[in-house]
Amino acid sequence: MSAQKKEIPYKIYLTEEEMPKAWYNLRADMKNKPAPLLNPATHEKMSVDDLSHVFCRELAEQELDDKTPYIPIPEEIQKFYKMYRPSPLVRAYCLEEKLGTPAHIYYKFEGNNTSGSHKLNSAIAQAYYAKKQGLKGVTTETGAGQWGTALSMACAYFGLDCKVYMVKVSYEQKPFRREVMRTYGASVTPSPSMETEIGKKINAEFPGTGGSLGCAISEAVEKATTTEGYRYVLGSVLAQVLLHQSIIGLETEAALKKYDIVPDVIIGCAGGGSNLGGLISPFMRDKIQGKLNCRIVAVEPDSCPSFTRGVYAYDYCDTGMVCPLAKMYTLGSGFMPSGTHAGGLRYHGMSSVLSQLYDDGLMEARSYKQTDVFAAAEEFARCEGILPAPESSHAIRAAIDEALKCKETGEAKNIVFGLTGTGYFDMYAYEKFNNGTMVDVPLTDEDIKKSLATLPKMD
Amino acid sequence: MSAQKKEIPYKIYLTEEEMPKAWYNLRADMKNKPAPLLNPATHEKMSVDDLSHVFCRELAEQELDDKTPYIPIPEEIQKFYKMYRPSPLVRAYCLEEKLGTPAHIYYKFEGNNTSGSHKLNSAIAQAYYAKKQGLKGVTTETGAGQWGTALSMACAYFGLDCKVYMVKVSYEQKPFRREVMRTYGASVTPSPSMETEIGKKINAEFPGTGGSLGCAISEAVEKATTTEGYRYVLGSVLAQVLLHQSIIGLETEAALKKYDIVPDVIIGCAGGGSNLGGLISPFMRDKIQGKLNCRIVAVEPDSCPSFTRGVYAYDYCDTGMVCPLAKMYTLGSGFMPSGTHAGGLRYHGMSSVLSQLYDDGLMEARSYKQTDVFAAAEEFARCEGILPAPESSHAIRAAIDEALKCKETGEAKNIVFGLTGTGYFDMYAYEKFNNGTMVDVPLTDEDIKKSLATLPKMD
Repeated sequence: MSAQKKEIPYKIYLTEEEMPKAWYNLRADMKNKPAPLLNPATHEKMSVDDLSHVFCRELAEQELDDKTPYIPIPEEIQKFYKMYRPSPLVRAYCLEEKLGTPAHIYYKFEGNNTSGSHKLNSAIAQAYYAKKQGLKGVTTETGAGQWGTALSMACAYFGLDCKVYMVKVSYEQKPFRREVMRTYGASVTPSPSMETEIGKKINAEFPGTGGSLGCAISEAVEKATTTEGYRYVLGSVLAQVLLHQSIIGLETEAALKKYDIVPDVIIGCAGGGSNLGGLISPFMRDKIQGKLNCRIVAVEPDSCPSFTRGVYAYDYCDTGMVCPLAKMYTLGSGFMPSGTHAGGLRYHGMSSVLSQLYDDGLMEARSYKQTDVFAAAEEFARCEGILPAPESSHAIRAAIDEALKCKETGEAKNIVFGLTGTGYFDMYAYEKFNNGTMVDVPLTDEDIKKSLATLPKMD
Repeated sequence: MSAQKKEIPYKIYLTEEEMPKAWYNLRADMKNKPAPLLNPATHEKMSVDDLSHVFCRELAEQELDDKTPYIPIPEEIQKFYKMYRPSPLVRAYCLEEKLGTPAHIYYKFEGNNTSGSHKLNSAIAQAYYAKKQGLKGVTTETGAGQWGTALSMACAYFGLDCKVYMVKVSYEQKPFRREVMRTYGASVTPSPSMETEIGKKINAEFPGTGGSLGCAISEAVEKATTTEGYRYVLGSVLAQVLLHQSIIGLETEAALKKYDIVPDVIIGCAGGGSNLGGLISPFMRDKIQGKLNCRIVAVEPDSCPSFTRGVYAYDYCDTGMVCPLAKMYTLGSGFMPSGTHAGGLRYHGMSSVLSQLYDDGLMEARSYKQTDVFAAAEEFARCEGILPAPESSHAIRAAIDEALKCKETGEAKNIVFGLTGTGYFDMYAYEKFNNGTMVDVPLTDEDIKKSLATLPKMD
């Protein structure tokens, strides 16, 4: 006889007391550890000292720590988290009804903060350690502006200076994002700029260039390493970022447990891997330990398919080739997604942690065309209310497809996906979709072969 | 001996069971009822039948009902509310700390939904009654697009057609808002259009005009009254809208009671009055009945000061003069705020309900310059995280000023204000503020005298 089931509300919130007090470091429980970061010149293992020239010391330690399972969240960060967390775990009753599926669909919604995404979870942590180290400020790059916004908010809170190098074409085309950052007191410089050596060089070589993320990273790193009291911070890919993002998964786990819900499928979109890595971390632990039998699915755009069409190899993390080498699923640091690609998730590689898990067969991956992704976004928005970010909509597409499969088989599976953010600053892309002018340009094997030629030669 | 006080969390959420099941109709408890709506041609009282040509019948009944204190919220609307409500009542711990005030500051945050504001609370109700009446669709106007977005979301949910007339200059300058509405399936027409008689007439008289809210209202009303199966809906000013918005106040009341908090000051920004009227309703009831001793403060821009510099008189609700006459604090329907005014809250008049309460001395009102309002917005954003809408920031300004007064007097007052929405689509205005190019153009007595000359002649 089963106990009386509690009715599941539309939104499951944890109380402040139930919020996680420590981040979870999945690497501690991985049987095969992620491959170490290497010096791009010498190909030797990076030490904490090496990394500390670029990153705050405590973050460098977190980056290399694959042993400590739980790292306490400092009080000050817990306090900031309480302003916009816990985020709700939402039961998508309306979407289920619309689809006519017996599946139960849940999404962890990270968009209810001004940065509009989960990026704030790591931004506040990185700003905190910079402040604790007595730094004056931090530098970073931003493309579309989500990460730059999150970091600006975090720096405003701790009274840190924040220098953001924003890809010039985005700086000009996304003035609203730029102004949000400026409202939080950040200085936003279009990249390439004339403030750095690398910027000057690129401006001289390519007059009038709109810039690239790779160039902006190089400028931000140069500025941090040549300015007294500054360090560089990064919003994805790194293991430290996945660590901070574990708050997403830990809250999800606690919310599901409150109602005795066992997930059958967990789905997340994957760019650099910060959201996916954070969401799945406690579930992956249980899966590794044989306590949970659950599918874990990474979803990527078919115009930037690192998992589904990339190779597992050491590669540069940035196109400027100044950052350490990481072993990851990659398309090559020279990879550029098609200009018609509007859906975000443009990074050429994938977190080393996730890459190892994927290589170990612990995760699945799939890719979708952007028009299919926007169709899912629209369907979701019209019944669940929330206008999702294009990135998040990759996970929506996969969740809908899984729920439709359940409709065929009659299974009442529990599907959990990460809704990483809102699409308010992505209306150019939605406009294309609404006007029917969004196109899918297939990525050829030839394209991939070309970009894989940029991989470093390893011994 | 006082009981042990419970620690107050950063965010007070109600459970779904604690959410209000009925709206509260403040008019039922007002000693002096708001003056009735009059036919603009005959100056006779409007009946439900009269109003039913323009509005859904059940909404027309709600509009004229000043007797029934509680009106049950239909199940379907409760269900929709559960997708984005309850909204949190937030304790502004960080702002208090920043200000160094002994005051306790709370804000009811209505911005956590895709419309970005409280407007959705009434949009879903109006869409529901339209659906229930078997209509095909509804028409409305929108300026900046908040209301249009909310209505599009509501109509998408119930499968109703939604025709939005968007002031042409906004249609062109705010393409993102337009695309949000289109994503929810609404048709958005720049006004003046060539689809209506009034639109054609205005286009002929003023070729190349950017349109006005008054003109857009007239187009929407004409379209609704000349198209089979359509009615017109409105997002503010009307008593029915205040009724639906009472959900804000009822939730606030319940959240405060959970922690035995008694408000000393309640503050809301005031444009047409829908947010303020909703927020204060249960507190005003208690104040009228002598059960609560609490100040209630309306805040308006000094470039559109209906309460603080207007007159209490019958006026047209729209510049097109097609809607009923309402008795209200007004600057005259011909009033146009200065072109430099970026802060929202541009309506010439004020809800009849609030006007009567203000005339009865039950409320205070004050006005602020927009540069002072944006300075408060920025200060708030940097410590509380949320980037507020310019409209909402009027209430923030007043709350900060009240808290600073407490700092002087050493009083630990409970200050509650309404944070109606987010400013993500207002970055042009923030950009002006960030660049130091925002100016305050004082409104002269002469300006007001001129616009008051547009008041109708009454017997």
